[in-house]
Amino acid sequence: MRLFGKGFVPALAFILTVWLIVPAQAADDPLASWNDGPAKQAILEFVSATTEEGSAKFVPPEDRIATFDQDGTLWVSHPLYTQTMFALDRVHELAPKHPEWKRKEPFKAVLAGDRDAMAKFGEGDWAQIVAATHAGMSTEDFLGIVKQWLATARDPRWKRPFTELVHQPMLEVMDYLRANGFRTYIVTGGGQEFVRVYSTQVYGVPPEQVVGSSIATRYEMRDGKPVLLREPKIFFIDDHAGKAIGINLFIGKRPVAAFGNSGGDREMLEWTQAGDGARLMMLVLHDDAEREYAYGPANGLPDTKVGTFSQSLMDEAKQRGWVVISMKNDWKRIFPSGVTPCR
Amino acid sequence: MRLFGKGFVPALAFILTVWLIVPAQAADDPLASWNDGPAKQAILEFVSATTEEGSAKFVPPEDRIATFDQDGTLWVSHPLYTQTMFALDRVHELAPKHPEWKRKEPFKAVLAGDRDAMAKFGEGDWAQIVAATHAGMSTEDFLGIVKQWLATARDPRWKRPFTELVHQPMLEVMDYLRANGFRTYIVTGGGQEFVRVYSTQVYGVPPEQVVGSSIATRYEMRDGKPVLLREPKIFFIDDHAGKAIGINLFIGKRPVAAFGNSGGDREMLEWTQAGDGARLMMLVLHDDAEREYAYGPANGLPDTKVGTFSQSLMDEAKQRGWVVISMKNDWKRIFPSGVTPCR
Repeated sequence: MRLFGKGFVPALAFILTVWLIVPAQAADDPLASWNDGPAKQAILEFVSATTEEGSAKFVPPEDRIATFDQDGTLWVSHPLYTQTMFALDRVHELAPKHPEWKRKEPFKAVLAGDRDAMAKFGEGDWAQIVAATHAGMSTEDFLGIVKQWLATARDPRWKRPFTELVHQPMLEVMDYLRANGFRTYIVTGGGQEFVRVYSTQVYGVPPEQVVGSSIATRYEMRDGKPVLLREPKIFFIDDHAGKAIGINLFIGKRPVAAFGNSGGDREMLEWTQAGDGARLMMLVLHDDAEREYAYGPANGLPDTKVGTFSQSLMDEAKQRGWVVISMKNDWKRIFPSGVTPCR
Repeated sequence: MRLFGKGFVPALAFILTVWLIVPAQAADDPLASWNDGPAKQAILEFVSATTEEGSAKFVPPEDRIATFDQDGTLWVSHPLYTQTMFALDRVHELAPKHPEWKRKEPFKAVLAGDRDAMAKFGEGDWAQIVAATHAGMSTEDFLGIVKQWLATARDPRWKRPFTELVHQPMLEVMDYLRANGFRTYIVTGGGQEFVRVYSTQVYGVPPEQVVGSSIATRYEMRDGKPVLLREPKIFFIDDHAGKAIGINLFIGKRPVAAFGNSGGDREMLEWTQAGDGARLMMLVLHDDAEREYAYGPANGLPDTKVGTFSQSLMDEAKQRGWVVISMKNDWKRIFPSGVTPCR
């Protein structure tokens, strides 16, 4: 019995082959959102060199540590850092309890939405805003406040939750490294407790692998139950040299791979590179005004003071052989499926 | 063909059965160095309750965090903390480079071996000794100094390396917890960098799971290569309330089990207990003068000022249901095989 014409079987075989092989190739590509090029190649070669048995640059699993800056590296950080948006929103929310803020800087400028004044805020102004919005409650209460804000706040350009505006290609790098036995750490200049609220859900990075800036806490017994109270006092700034110090303090091992995007990540990359054996140092360059943002002197653009990629950082990257990732050229897609720019 | 007499097979079967079953029973006891009693029972019940699928107190693997004090809990801490011994030895070793120390306290008393004077040292004296012995070098150099000292230094009573004077029953608890998906952290009042030198080898605890006290470090570029320099400035004291603060800072999760032996561990146990669900809080009581040491008011003995177990701690343990481990009654053996007291 013959149900089909002569050419059917070879045709079916061809179709099946295409169907089986083509998607398999796509699914097999751990870095599907990356265009072929030196950046993608550097990641693939690094993972092979450090994980293949018998490789001269093999790194034992317990030493496979990769550190990632967050703001501008893993997610959008323009026009303001997300945590700055949180702080400003908090000032508005708390304002009814602080009628004096209407006449008192820096709160007055925030409440009036005076962007020119805010752009001129100094360290003392921001310290007052952090104290008013990040301190004076228990650690548990703070986590609750951040969680609630994240659920409702929206990025002004994409009208999306901030936690959706993550860089898909970087999520793929994190997944790929973890699939190869690396532990991925976030090493952020942002607030450690702030990032810990969503790091597991958004990046697959548990709280104990988030190293960040922090304020002091105070232990207090309330009705026989202890609480940690957040105090208006900086404890640790995990930025610039603080990133190398923080890595040594919190991890106690030197990373073999490090990813950043600005001057605040320079020392993390230097510290990573100073170890022996295979090393991977990468910097994300924001050069894609259409799909995300383009800014900074390394692009020949003005310095926006948020996530600065200076010419001197670019010079050091070239001199030390760090890989610069061009968002425009190296990334096929910027955001996870479903997130598209709406202006 | 019959090679053996009639009774051979049954005899062989019997011998094999004994050989297979008897050691298997011993090997099956994960807490072989513990006598049966409420302390051992509490550990076994806690692990069952938190790890058996369907248990009302089941804890998901990512939240299985257990924290251990080191000095006096995991290893001997008398008559002086091991790290104090290290500091005093270092003063002797560095003395030739500091001729002025012969006339300058607190160094003069250390070099003269004046125990009465040393017993009266205040915080300022110890700060000077720490600055002279723990700072002024890179983190890498410090690790090398500690490693070398550990290889040669001997406990005065047992004439053994300090790293052998660990409490075998506690090693078994750590192994048992890890075999059940827990991550074991050391949370020590001692120096974080000091303990990290040997924590993997001695306790199976990697550097990133050691939370301790630390001094500040400074990032500096030397011949194009970065180093972290240890500065004579306290950064964090991981003791008393600092243990709860340190756990939140470094781990960001509340432990479900905590083990200590002195007043410095009180807040760690309180903090652990304040979470929901199954909790295990245990305190080692040094009541075995023969095999290790007996000291402290909770034993009706004088306070030695090193690892104090006060009456108020004992009262709180009773009131909050913390389990007190009697070294004398609960531990079959104190040290790993091969370590016996020699006086």
